[in-house]
Amino acid sequence: MIFASDNWAGVHQAISERLAQEAGGFSVAYGDSQLDKAIEQRFNQLFEKEVAVFFVATGTAANALALASVNRPGGVVFCHREAHMIEDECGAPEFFTHGARLVPVDGLLGRIDPVALESEINRFPADFIHAGQPMAISITQSTEIGTVYQPDQILEISAIAKRQGLPLHMDGARFANALVALDLSPAQMTWKLGVDIISFGATKNGCWCAEALVFTNPDMAGDLPYIRKRAAQLFSKTRFIASQFDAYLNDDLWLELAAHANLMAQRLADGIQQSSQAHLAWKPETNEVFCVIKQSLSSDLREQGAVFHEWNLPHTCLAEISEDEVLIRLVTSFASETRQIDRFIELLK
Amino acid sequence: MIFASDNWAGVHQAISERLAQEAGGFSVAYGDSQLDKAIEQRFNQLFEKEVAVFFVATGTAANALALASVNRPGGVVFCHREAHMIEDECGAPEFFTHGARLVPVDGLLGRIDPVALESEINRFPADFIHAGQPMAISITQSTEIGTVYQPDQILEISAIAKRQGLPLHMDGARFANALVALDLSPAQMTWKLGVDIISFGATKNGCWCAEALVFTNPDMAGDLPYIRKRAAQLFSKTRFIASQFDAYLNDDLWLELAAHANLMAQRLADGIQQSSQAHLAWKPETNEVFCVIKQSLSSDLREQGAVFHEWNLPHTCLAEISEDEVLIRLVTSFASETRQIDRFIELLK
Amino acid sequence: MIFASDNWAGVHQAISERLAQEAGGFSVAYGDSQLDKAIEQRFNQLFEKEVAVFFVATGTAANALALASVNRPGGVVFCHREAHMIEDECGAPEFFTHGARLVPVDGLLGRIDPVALESEINRFPADFIHAGQPMAISITQSTEIGTVYQPDQILEISAIAKRQGLPLHMDGARFANALVALDLSPAQMTWKLGVDIISFGATKNGCWCAEALVFTNPDMAGDLPYIRKRAAQLFSKTRFIASQFDAYLNDDLWLELAAHANLMAQRLADGIQQSSQAHLAWKPETNEVFCVIKQSLSSDLREQGAVFHEWNLPHTCLAEISEDEVLIRLVTSFASETRQIDRFIELLK
Amino acid sequence: MIFASDNWAGVHQAISERLAQEAGGFSVAYGDSQLDKAIEQRFNQLFEKEVAVFFVATGTAANALALASVNRPGGVVFCHREAHMIEDECGAPEFFTHGARLVPVDGLLGRIDPVALESEINRFPADFIHAGQPMAISITQSTEIGTVYQPDQILEISAIAKRQGLPLHMDGARFANALVALDLSPAQMTWKLGVDIISFGATKNGCWCAEALVFTNPDMAGDLPYIRKRAAQLFSKTRFIASQFDAYLNDDLWLELAAHANLMAQRLADGIQQSSQAHLAWKPETNEVFCVIKQSLSSDLREQGAVFHEWNLPHTCLAEISEDEVLIRLVTSFASETRQIDRFIELLK
Repeated sequence: MIFASDNWAGVHQAISERLAQEAGGFSVAYGDSQLDKAIEQRFNQLFEKEVAVFFVATGTAANALALASVNRPGGVVFCHREAHMIEDECGAPEFFTHGARLVPVDGLLGRIDPVALESEINRFPADFIHAGQPMAISITQSTEIGTVYQPDQILEISAIAKRQGLPLHMDGARFANALVALDLSPAQMTWKLGVDIISFGATKNGCWCAEALVFTNPDMAGDLPYIRKRAAQLFSKTRFIASQFDAYLNDDLWLELAAHANLMAQRLADGIQQSSQAHLAWKPETNEVFCVIKQSLSSDLREQGAVFHEWNLPHTCLAEISEDEVLIRLVTSFASETRQIDRFIELLK
Repeated sequence: MIFASDNWAGVHQAISERLAQEAGGFSVAYGDSQLDKAIEQRFNQLFEKEVAVFFVATGTAANALALASVNRPGGVVFCHREAHMIEDECGAPEFFTHGARLVPVDGLLGRIDPVALESEINRFPADFIHAGQPMAISITQSTEIGTVYQPDQILEISAIAKRQGLPLHMDGARFANALVALDLSPAQMTWKLGVDIISFGATKNGCWCAEALVFTNPDMAGDLPYIRKRAAQLFSKTRFIASQFDAYLNDDLWLELAAHANLMAQRLADGIQQSSQAHLAWKPETNEVFCVIKQSLSSDLREQGAVFHEWNLPHTCLAEISEDEVLIRLVTSFASETRQIDRFIELLK
Repeated sequence: MIFASDNWAGVHQAISERLAQEAGGFSVAYGDSQLDKAIEQRFNQLFEKEVAVFFVATGTAANALALASVNRPGGVVFCHREAHMIEDECGAPEFFTHGARLVPVDGLLGRIDPVALESEINRFPADFIHAGQPMAISITQSTEIGTVYQPDQILEISAIAKRQGLPLHMDGARFANALVALDLSPAQMTWKLGVDIISFGATKNGCWCAEALVFTNPDMAGDLPYIRKRAAQLFSKTRFIASQFDAYLNDDLWLELAAHANLMAQRLADGIQQSSQAHLAWKPETNEVFCVIKQSLSSDLREQGAVFHEWNLPHTCLAEISEDEVLIRLVTSFASETRQIDRFIELLK
Repeated sequence: MIFASDNWAGVHQAISERLAQEAGGFSVAYGDSQLDKAIEQRFNQLFEKEVAVFFVATGTAANALALASVNRPGGVVFCHREAHMIEDECGAPEFFTHGARLVPVDGLLGRIDPVALESEINRFPADFIHAGQPMAISITQSTEIGTVYQPDQILEISAIAKRQGLPLHMDGARFANALVALDLSPAQMTWKLGVDIISFGATKNGCWCAEALVFTNPDMAGDLPYIRKRAAQLFSKTRFIASQFDAYLNDDLWLELAAHANLMAQRLADGIQQSSQAHLAWKPETNEVFCVIKQSLSSDLREQGAVFHEWNLPHTCLAEISEDEVLIRLVTSFASETRQIDRFIELLK
């Protein structure tokens, strides 16, 4: 009953086998192999347009290099108050941008509120150099708390981005989970809604280590080869990432894996809704379920072998928690098994 | 006949299998799994003392974070004029140190000359703030051109480091090749000679992506967990690195692989010495062979399927090259095959 | 009727004359002249202990280098939500610390609330590397809105700093105004209350360009000479700063100038309190007066020649403003004249 | 007999008086005063075209911000091996560019050799990301050793810059001295020869602290307001710099002062040429004289009150020095007096 995080899972068998298959032989290093080029082409198909794509080591790297690519002196980035980049990356975005500032924006259920966003941006008037200058907006899809932006919500934010002349980044550490939840294509969830740069995560959804930074407008990525190399993110044996992506994208495996994770979360949520001992903090939309239980039950569950994190109540959610209760986060993944879900639900009865 | 670089090889079968074996199940993320801890312990045994060890994505990351860990404002690092960190890392050391300067030091055959080293360091007198302040010395073992520092040569440099109060770093992208060539233990080649920090590379010697940053004095590494995380170098599924190291270090596989690579280089060198069409630029000591051939022969070899790089004549070597000749670099690896070597030698006849 | 800022004033005559007197002759450059040394000694007397003092160009430089001197990777600085360093320095603190994060802390009337402070610090638990690590606390004395921390309030914050192992910085852009308001000595307002580093500003209080960074524990400043030089903040003709400080500190001129500015502010405040057209937003304690007036009156005052800024209502103040009102900031200085104050008050009647 | 450096002098009386005259009254802060704007206009006239001009605190700041304005990831700057920015700025250029590398280029008598320059640039082939990417060329006029580039020599370098697509920066810490020596106008010595950015120094030539960063193409300076502010180089009371420049540029005072300094150097050089105890290391062209004397004479001169620095023999000069000799540097300034020169020459007899 491992619900700590989707990155506690290992790697899907098809991906593991594809990687093993690549073990022999020789290949050009540093991203110039045929396989690398073929996978880059695959991203063009995936996004239904020519994109620039860069493999990097971690989701944090993808986010940080995305911001580095649009960096400005005294730059200010707007993201949700609970965004991974502001809460969990140890200052990597600031480091890779040489000191850009991340400004937290409020918004219910993990989504940036457009009014709050514009209000924050307006605190940095053009040419008032003392405050710095806006340089990017970043949204997380799916969000840190398992919700998704609906297409029109993304559109509303990208309209602000356009009006303010700012690029729009999407932290897609759980891109596939959102895609499946919304039943959209990558193009429909990104550039067709005005998203410029995507951190396209695959690690959490069945790979060992496969993250791609995608620019929907390749012209924006002119300096990225240098930015990535200088950031120590250019692998020599890039085949080991390319081959993971190969299996990941093949036959829509990635969507299948995300669909499974989401389904498992739904099964969890259904069980919780029927339990008198727990209630959902909010409706889960992808593969993360947040629910409120008694502190004592939390301890019991752990003794029974369940692994999960207690969570701080987000600033911007409507759930209420009494003194003897805790909010817990349950994350499912491609590797979650029905019987583990059911066993957990059993414990809630 | 692939001699372009040892990072053109894939991954050794035992390592590939060990990785595949780790695919299932769940495990704590971000370096806290049992396997991670066990492999860290293994490094203690390997170095015969308690060390601090950090897995990172690339050799460039290992070098850059090593320097970041001993960073000083206005800092100056002394390395060989042809060191990887100064020639091939796109400014990563400067970036991760927020602008430290790498000062190239001369020295024959890829090895820092101790007299030149001390002379360069003395250009930065204590308290003369205008020039900056020395912060580290870095040597490469084996060197960029396939030679090795003998133990007494390392000792001579570490004596200077001690006298000047500077930490000594070893870029060990090809650590195993040097170890085997010198028939020393890791302890004998490092801290017993005064080396403080090691970039312990395994990627070039049979792994997909496995680099470790080793501090022989763990007290020096207090901030490294933050430095690594902020550098976007902390993998979530660190098992995929730990398991590679597991197989790599098991039953001395790593030494066996390096010994094979070195042997293949020796076989190449022997063939070259017997050829009238080529001559060794200098005696190879590990897995890199540099030889001088006619430009026309270089083209012929390529047409016959040989893959290798032409190389700039190092500033500090004694070889001579005429107008119609080129210096070529031939790198062998764990995956090099005798018959490919022999076929190449055949072409030289 | 210039109340825009205290940095709109020029320079006090005694300081100007002292500077002119220094014009002739020759002197050692880069901070090593006898005058520099003598003024450094003067700071020892001023603070009643041996301090390390560094002249820099701007208050922003003083603040940024203060933080750079205690920098840590993934570092987090806690300051008031309206602090100058977070609102008005265009990311300089982040830049000079290579990406440290400034976390805004709430607190009424410009002063950090100790409970809010500790609560924010506790969001960064020891060894939870994902969030980064606390590195300093900064308070502003007098505050951005003209109030002061009472000694026991500073003590309360320094107790937190000690408990958390963090250095305490004081942004003293208006150090003298606070000192005079509280009738304390520099020692009493700083290290005796646990303050470690002070941005000692003199520019706003009668100098052209004279800012000093003071370390009450000189051991903390070991690398500062390099940090300052690398930051392009070491003047060659440092005499021009030293001589300003000479006149500034002589015969307590600085306290006299600050007392005048504070008195002028008090006169303004008294006038406002007697006006039916304006009311104080809060009680001014130094040389900044904030009051609420009708928007139409604001325009009228400007037409009559008054110069001042309208101000955003601080997040953490209790004043209320109706739709047709504005908050305005009136700053007095050493150069403010009674008749200008009185003329302004006359316009309020 | 102060020949240590031109920054050991104080400030010219006319400049001092102009500054004092500015002491009273009030003025807009942060560079927006009428005087600031007027002086900016003056630079347009001076350069005979619209330029963008930014006052900063030090020559190091001017150089570092010049490079920051053309910064690229993995960027490489080419400057003379003895340039101030590479020898005497404690890593400020690297810091302000977040880690760009300065590559030293050889060249006789302080001037970059065009052949060596192109050869160094060619070590960074387009799209070979491992080495980094060229981003600027910087020349020093007059050079660190008192020589000047002739117009055709600058043209030769700017032709390379254009061919390589690189901006050309001129470190003009002693801009006026070069201008007078060559009898050129600012336009003739800069943009008409292809120079893009100038560090226009006035401190060494009679000001307290007055450095300007000049962009001959204002479009290149779009982000500079933010870069300068973030670098803590935007003074609040900018009048104190503007007024210095006012007096400095008025009635060609600056050229007069530089002419005096150069003349004094010539007088020194003439005396040395007639002395049997000293010989010129090379022909001085501006206000720095380098000569070779016996070590014992150096000590004697100092005992007699002469102040000067012994100097390392530049890598790229043709002078020869025997064991018991030293190279000394004698710098004259606007404040040098004929009788001091003559007294020094007397001592050489």
